[in-house]
Amino acid sequence: MSYKAISGIGEFGLIDKIASLAEPTLSAIPELLTGIGDDCAVFQPSPKLLQVATTDMLADQVHFDLLTTPLKHLGSKAISVNVSDICAMNALPRYALISLAIPASFSVAMVEELYQGMSHAAKEYGLAIAGGDTSSSRSGLVISVSMIGEVSPEQLTYRSGAKQGELICITGSLGGAAAGLKLLMREKEIMLNHLENNESYSRNMMADLQEYSKAIQQQLLPLARIDIVRFFHAHGIRPSAMIDISDGLSSDLQHLCRRSKIGAMIHEGRIPVHGSTRQIADELQDDALTWALTGGEDYQLLFTIPKEEYPTISDNKEIAVIGETTDKEEGVQISDIYGMKIDLSSIRGFDHFGS
Amino acid sequence: MSYKAISGIGEFGLIDKIASLAEPTLSAIPELLTGIGDDCAVFQPSPKLLQVATTDMLADQVHFDLLTTPLKHLGSKAISVNVSDICAMNALPRYALISLAIPASFSVAMVEELYQGMSHAAKEYGLAIAGGDTSSSRSGLVISVSMIGEVSPEQLTYRSGAKQGELICITGSLGGAAAGLKLLMREKEIMLNHLENNESYSRNMMADLQEYSKAIQQQLLPLARIDIVRFFHAHGIRPSAMIDISDGLSSDLQHLCRRSKIGAMIHEGRIPVHGSTRQIADELQDDALTWALTGGEDYQLLFTIPKEEYPTISDNKEIAVIGETTDKEEGVQISDIYGMKIDLSSIRGFDHFGS
Repeated sequence: MSYKAISGIGEFGLIDKIASLAEPTLSAIPELLTGIGDDCAVFQPSPKLLQVATTDMLADQVHFDLLTTPLKHLGSKAISVNVSDICAMNALPRYALISLAIPASFSVAMVEELYQGMSHAAKEYGLAIAGGDTSSSRSGLVISVSMIGEVSPEQLTYRSGAKQGELICITGSLGGAAAGLKLLMREKEIMLNHLENNESYSRNMMADLQEYSKAIQQQLLPLARIDIVRFFHAHGIRPSAMIDISDGLSSDLQHLCRRSKIGAMIHEGRIPVHGSTRQIADELQDDALTWALTGGEDYQLLFTIPKEEYPTISDNKEIAVIGETTDKEEGVQISDIYGMKIDLSSIRGFDHFGS
Repeated sequence: MSYKAISGIGEFGLIDKIASLAEPTLSAIPELLTGIGDDCAVFQPSPKLLQVATTDMLADQVHFDLLTTPLKHLGSKAISVNVSDICAMNALPRYALISLAIPASFSVAMVEELYQGMSHAAKEYGLAIAGGDTSSSRSGLVISVSMIGEVSPEQLTYRSGAKQGELICITGSLGGAAAGLKLLMREKEIMLNHLENNESYSRNMMADLQEYSKAIQQQLLPLARIDIVRFFHAHGIRPSAMIDISDGLSSDLQHLCRRSKIGAMIHEGRIPVHGSTRQIADELQDDALTWALTGGEDYQLLFTIPKEEYPTISDNKEIAVIGETTDKEEGVQISDIYGMKIDLSSIRGFDHFGS
């Protein structure tokens, strides 16, 4: 792979390359009448469906570190985190707009890798990459994705619909993304130390990470739970409230409860912790439950359903009941394995501007 | 105005502030069922209308310089450049999603100023600020706006519909934004020289810029030509092709011609040059026509109409006919005031990755 600077093909050459990488995603959405190439993308909304719209920005050194993040994975993740927001409305994604601020150090091949990851993910989720904007960046890479989805009014699910006395459920397992991040940060530290001391660093030194590959994958290549939304639609299930877990179970459960004006009681013993997360936490002398509650980036779905609807989800092994909604006055609590109740507002998720 | 760090109110405190600034924009669009506060915004598309979607990113040191750009103006411009893309489809804007990457040096008041500018512009254009994302930035401010508009299939205008032998028209005048930028850059240079030499620099030194305030305003506070789209709709006018002038007349006319598979001949003498642009160019020993052709950021509309439709636009003083479309083989040309023909492909607009 020879180095080719973006200046060698220019802005419009780059846009042509991007358009050709986005092209294979278009056939999934025949309602997209025009993709990249005009001032706007043009879309024919489906009659009787509502539209949902979200945007998420990923910035170098804040959301990712290119030392530990393959560009294809990063492209895929930028799509997945937006799909996750669409899924949290019980909706399905239709099209995305992608803005990139690209550092001067980037080659054409690097932008292509990033877009290959986006295009691959878009195809998996069945959405079209419909347009975007590229500019140079005087600092790090910034990726901003906006995404449009559709849902029938009967299926649309807000954060605000939960009632007292319902079941609180989550999909998949938690803590893996945080565990993966901690491992990658440790590895980066080791690598930088080697470089500082002029010692050689070979990829083979990472071989012992093999057993933790699922946690690292959960961090680098999270998947949105579109399978769960499809399961809901196939079985006519509409959660009373739903949110995706991006900031961490603790923080996101509090968001849902605040919007629904309810309290919650969840049980430590029922929270599914991701694969080798406990083992990694032991190794790093950290706490797996804290990662599961506050680590964030697991992109699972947290939802509530009335108790009488439990049979509709009981067969799905990807869904676990972790507690019940309560009266607002009781707050949002977790009971530990000894039955002790702890207020979740004392356990905080990631705050971008926290001191 | 006392300094309050964003860390003092946290990410969710900041989101609450942003939501309250976006709130006054919501009433313009009753079809927006949910704005900021859930995983997605929810919108009820108008029956029988098509949707158009665009995104534009503004990055510090690439698209703006905070030394010469008031934050309110910057917020307004971030909205206007997207509205301009919507207008170029002959569509009207409905809602916007706004992502910000905010440097640690920013105070709460600075984010508020930025949002006040966005909110003010949104109200002027009649669109709703429906959602967004905020994160910290390890480098400069990055603003990414995505915008959704609507248009009937009968009014939708692409870049690609122009035919040979039609009139080429532009709105307003060109070159002002480039002239304004040059003045601001000169002023910044003077200011930095004063600082380097420990000399005092007072705002009064800028007093002589008063006479050039319209050019500076065109750079800092451009307005999208939504008035022209409303004029088209009111008079049942549908241009055969349209594009907004963001890269410069030369570059954008070439885009339109390439997509329409035609050539063009425009006339130097007919290009409306903005206010004091010639005077500023003389003062800075530069060329006003070059600015008009390649300066970009004027956000005027460039469109084509069949000759027989000329009477429908002839009374509008904001529209000038600058030439005619020709056969593709003739290329895209400008004839100067002596009748000499110059190929516009030799006169290039801004390329983000140009060497």
